[in-house]
Amino acid sequence: MASVSGFSVSGVHAGLKANDALDMAVIFSDRPCVAAGVFTTNLMKAAPVLFDIGQLTSNSDNIRAIVVNTKCANACTGEQGLANARETARLAAKALGIESSQVLVMSTGVIGTHLPMPKIARGIELATATLGQDWDAAARGIMTTDTRPKLASESFDTPNGKVTLTGIAKGAGMIAPNMATLLSAVVTDAVLTAEQAYRLLKQAVEPTFNRIVVDGDMSTNDTLMLLANGASGVSISPNFEAQFAAALLKVCRELAQAIVRDGEGATKFITLHVKGAVDDAAARQIANAIATSPLVKTAFYGGDANWGRIVAAAGRSGVSFDAASVKLRIAKGETLTGDLLLFENEMPTQYSEERATEIVKSSEVYALLDVGQGAGEAIVYTCDLSHDYVSINGSYRS
Amino acid sequence: MASVSGFSVSGVHAGLKANDALDMAVIFSDRPCVAAGVFTTNLMKAAPVLFDIGQLTSNSDNIRAIVVNTKCANACTGEQGLANARETARLAAKALGIESSQVLVMSTGVIGTHLPMPKIARGIELATATLGQDWDAAARGIMTTDTRPKLASESFDTPNGKVTLTGIAKGAGMIAPNMATLLSAVVTDAVLTAEQAYRLLKQAVEPTFNRIVVDGDMSTNDTLMLLANGASGVSISPNFEAQFAAALLKVCRELAQAIVRDGEGATKFITLHVKGAVDDAAARQIANAIATSPLVKTAFYGGDANWGRIVAAAGRSGVSFDAASVKLRIAKGETLTGDLLLFENEMPTQYSEERATEIVKSSEVYALLDVGQGAGEAIVYTCDLSHDYVSINGSYRS
Repeated sequence: MASVSGFSVSGVHAGLKANDALDMAVIFSDRPCVAAGVFTTNLMKAAPVLFDIGQLTSNSDNIRAIVVNTKCANACTGEQGLANARETARLAAKALGIESSQVLVMSTGVIGTHLPMPKIARGIELATATLGQDWDAAARGIMTTDTRPKLASESFDTPNGKVTLTGIAKGAGMIAPNMATLLSAVVTDAVLTAEQAYRLLKQAVEPTFNRIVVDGDMSTNDTLMLLANGASGVSISPNFEAQFAAALLKVCRELAQAIVRDGEGATKFITLHVKGAVDDAAARQIANAIATSPLVKTAFYGGDANWGRIVAAAGRSGVSFDAASVKLRIAKGETLTGDLLLFENEMPTQYSEERATEIVKSSEVYALLDVGQGAGEAIVYTCDLSHDYVSINGSYRS
Repeated sequence: MASVSGFSVSGVHAGLKANDALDMAVIFSDRPCVAAGVFTTNLMKAAPVLFDIGQLTSNSDNIRAIVVNTKCANACTGEQGLANARETARLAAKALGIESSQVLVMSTGVIGTHLPMPKIARGIELATATLGQDWDAAARGIMTTDTRPKLASESFDTPNGKVTLTGIAKGAGMIAPNMATLLSAVVTDAVLTAEQAYRLLKQAVEPTFNRIVVDGDMSTNDTLMLLANGASGVSISPNFEAQFAAALLKVCRELAQAIVRDGEGATKFITLHVKGAVDDAAARQIANAIATSPLVKTAFYGGDANWGRIVAAAGRSGVSFDAASVKLRIAKGETLTGDLLLFENEMPTQYSEERATEIVKSSEVYALLDVGQGAGEAIVYTCDLSHDYVSINGSYRS
């Protein structure tokens, strides 16, 4: 991963997880950052989410660090949870020689248990003492049921210098659209205003993090944070905004897709493209109904081209369309190249079952559902529902 | 099961299913029936649903028979599918010596394949030749992934004679509220008007079939039919309407709950009771979010009292409430007797983890979530999400 001027990171084992797995991470900037965040829209917001919203409200142009812990979400933990989030920030500030008001916190893990503060304190001590450029360790330090770290980096040149963006994310379960995602942080050395940072982040999140579904459950802790420390000296003036937006979009897309590819128990990456809806929102509603359908997801897992389930899920999505104008195509991979038309005029085409099965058995499937009503469209990325998803979530706390 | 005067039934093996499993059923009345139906609200309505809606529109006081087939849903089959539904009715009418306009049809099974008409014809021949009082065979003849037949019967006395109701149902997968259910038929010898039959049926469906969730997927074929042939001679005048409504409610509740208990792969029966919402609709929306949450369902399967997932699902339900006023209680069985308070004042209580686990590990669990905003409440019945659900639906068509 490309280093970003002025930022250092670390990932450590604080004893939250069994064995020696990394379970805490710190991101630190040598100078104040403009910070923007998007958060879960779940009403039951975790303490770190409430804490960070407060920090950004009063201090969005003077953030220096993010502390992340796994194994405990610090959600549904009331006043004690908020006190623990504050204490985490205070301990990190003390170790880093900065103010508590400059620290953001993120937590992920089991809901309804309190942070084990002695372990958190130990983790902060370790993590702040080992800050460097090991982005892989930082990405591993925020993993829960993820099987691999998720990182992405982009840079671009301007006449005023080079700008770099690097991000990390964790996902795996409790992934649904309508919000940020689980935990992700993207840092850049660009000079951004707070208004710009928030606007560009929102814009990048819409077609990326807000378009992924693992299981349709929305977390209490979803947080995506953008930190810009200005170390490159490059101001993102209107001239360079498009370049920055494109780079940010690319980083967000790569991280968001990595979350789906590594969804809990996932064996397939599925791109659901809905078009022909009356508007984009309607298309998205249809795509979400398909992406969260247990029957669609288990059919993909079984490599069964049981396409009727896709059409049936669209039909119960709550969006109105004319059954007679629906068409469904599937293809291998991430695009529609070499597609097979399965359904039109209210009935199956004379397609080859063998070829349909071959497509659905591949590790990447693209499905295009055209409901033929208008120009609205949406793409949602999702994965299948496997035995492993059930195993992982039947015994998550143990 | 109690026989109902004037009705005869049968269940036969027409060769739709492998081995010798029963796969078709016929219900026949020796005289015209008043008929009322409730159907899926899925836009992709199957041919038999469209056909029956048409029959009831023109002929709701003159129905004589219902023909049911499994293995093929006759959904997403266009004009050919409608022609096959009509042909099924024609063949049954011919064999029974009645008119095509007096026959209703129901289908369940794979979406997007055409009815194998030679087998359907053979099944009708066999089923109409073996009509009798074997309700168990009829209930078995409509099963798909169900592991056991579902029957319920009630009767009550009036000064004018005795009234009997008997019903059968099938369920197992693609079960979600907002509609009738998969396939169910309730017959009675009461004398009902068409208006009465429809009104009483709608009323009985609301707290029963419309309150069950297996997987949140709504079928293309859901149909619940009430046939009243009047053979008892007992008119359901306003005096007896409450008695009839109570009996019908009991039959519907028993059948609906049986569907959840026998949900695909289900190992637990879960009653989700939400109260304190601003109105009943809001309570139901919260209950549905919990009932369809893969994380809640897998935690129940694993016997893990991971109650944070219940609260988190409520928080993303789209219903507004104050997190500070939420309380969650769980108990063994079908009532709140001996409950354990897990969460209030935004944090876990000092509950015994051992006792919580014991409750969640039992085969019937009652959960009461009080969101503390108003008088709205709803009860939804659901089941867990197991490895077997994934196995069954990963290879459903094979």
